[in-house]
Amino acid sequence: MALVHDSYPSRQEEKPRIIERKDPVIYTAPEDADGSGLSPEQLRQFERDGFIALPQFFTAKEVAAFRHEMTRMANDPETINRDEAVTEPDSGAVRSIFRVHQLSSLFNRLSRHPRLLSIAGQILGGGVYIHQSRINMKPGFRGQGFYWHSDFETWHVEDGLPRMRTVSCSVTLTENNEFNGPLMLIPGSQNHYIACVGETPDENYKSSLRKQVAGTPDEESLTQLAEQGGIQAPKGPAGTVLLFDCNTMHGSSSNISPFPRSNVFFVYNSIENTPVEPWSGLKPRPAFAAEREDCSPLEPTENPDFTS
Amino acid sequence: MALVHDSYPSRQEEKPRIIERKDPVIYTAPEDADGSGLSPEQLRQFERDGFIALPQFFTAKEVAAFRHEMTRMANDPETINRDEAVTEPDSGAVRSIFRVHQLSSLFNRLSRHPRLLSIAGQILGGGVYIHQSRINMKPGFRGQGFYWHSDFETWHVEDGLPRMRTVSCSVTLTENNEFNGPLMLIPGSQNHYIACVGETPDENYKSSLRKQVAGTPDEESLTQLAEQGGIQAPKGPAGTVLLFDCNTMHGSSSNISPFPRSNVFFVYNSIENTPVEPWSGLKPRPAFAAEREDCSPLEPTENPDFTS
Repeated sequence: MALVHDSYPSRQEEKPRIIERKDPVIYTAPEDADGSGLSPEQLRQFERDGFIALPQFFTAKEVAAFRHEMTRMANDPETINRDEAVTEPDSGAVRSIFRVHQLSSLFNRLSRHPRLLSIAGQILGGGVYIHQSRINMKPGFRGQGFYWHSDFETWHVEDGLPRMRTVSCSVTLTENNEFNGPLMLIPGSQNHYIACVGETPDENYKSSLRKQVAGTPDEESLTQLAEQGGIQAPKGPAGTVLLFDCNTMHGSSSNISPFPRSNVFFVYNSIENTPVEPWSGLKPRPAFAAEREDCSPLEPTENPDFTS
Repeated sequence: MALVHDSYPSRQEEKPRIIERKDPVIYTAPEDADGSGLSPEQLRQFERDGFIALPQFFTAKEVAAFRHEMTRMANDPETINRDEAVTEPDSGAVRSIFRVHQLSSLFNRLSRHPRLLSIAGQILGGGVYIHQSRINMKPGFRGQGFYWHSDFETWHVEDGLPRMRTVSCSVTLTENNEFNGPLMLIPGSQNHYIACVGETPDENYKSSLRKQVAGTPDEESLTQLAEQGGIQAPKGPAGTVLLFDCNTMHGSSSNISPFPRSNVFFVYNSIENTPVEPWSGLKPRPAFAAEREDCSPLEPTENPDFTS
């Protein structure tokens, strides 16, 4: 058993319940924003909603470079035969490739983009490292949805992240519109942790990266969160950065539109919040899904020109 | 084999192709609108887009009466054990009940609503009868989507409707919003018939009412239609009437939101377009899915008060 106190128990009791958040959502007071990251107003919005969209963060030319690299990786037999590649349950098409900040030098540099690191440092207070990274490719016509979940619930129970001090950063590589299964988020849900029911199967990640079963929030709690906060699905052109707190409830619908939906995704974790033994009592997930070894703080890239 | 010429062959060739529509979309000239149905402008819009939404067609009180009747039927063991009741592939929950214009006196009167009949008569030119009716209940959290399709393709191949002279009328019984899997339609697609590939299995309706396989349009043709016309998903409060042409391409995404989505649905067919032998060469679908016997023109109800 873990020696660290379990601040957010889940998958342990027979009935679901909601535990109030014990951690700050932002670790920098808005009035202390220094101009290198989010503005005071943006920090307040992130604290209130648990997410913020930053349109036009990247230019069309930068997006083209990221897409080119994504396509290269998705067509590279060596890459797609790795454990890091996750395929659609039905069609076998590549849906995600994990650990892209280590498999690709371009995405490595992107993960250390100076302003992204400033923002992550602002939100989490101090040094950050990558807990997980991936590219997601939801194809048109048959892209499957992903049910509501809190990332933190999984990262806590299966990876051993002790506290809520982690932020996800999604860089959109295609337009997000109302038809292609955009990410839906419940504003304010970051302040309420749904303790789920059900035990975690061994090696759960092998199926849960495709379709989650353990760690699924109950419908009554979800209804309560959605009635309090509503649902939002940020839409807009490629090149938007979407930042969301590790406990913000989110999910997506299927995509039968002809428009694919892709993004590159970095999870920044505070170096004060490195993983301990998972509270599931099981073996931790593999490093491509949850970093445990290299938790040293990231340095901003010295070459933030991604188009050369 | 059918003796009537097949104007819209499908599921016969190895490659999909697009056949241009041979029939009018509206059988009444817009300038001849007499005030009892759609206005000239609304008729033009229907002709152009292949659909039109009429918000606030029914009052909240009328919607409440329809919902009450829907709930009664969905909880009536005698009803849900009938062939007319279709359940979700996974959960077994009731998704649709067919033939409600005959199983329910309220929905029978609704199907003969004077203004709805005027509109159907305007669009189709003359007398109409019900080819199919149903209530649809897409639950929250786990409502499944329905892939793109032209209703006419099925009604032609499996039911033997000779020509495009049929209009669907959906009365929304819940709000349609961007999160609960609203109907998506491709404007202008009514003018292009996608001849699909693949043979029709015997008794196809038993599975196709849940998930369609035969009669699925190909991705290239769908992309072409969507590039020409875009996609629209009419949204709005309950009580909206959505009319769409039998060949308008439509589909819906899954619904993981907490908000269910329900409607009552009537398919009006021209009495000049009654079914012949299906071009599939197979036995026609049962009467609850496709009327073949009682094709006499509907008379408007004398009691259009649905709340008493």
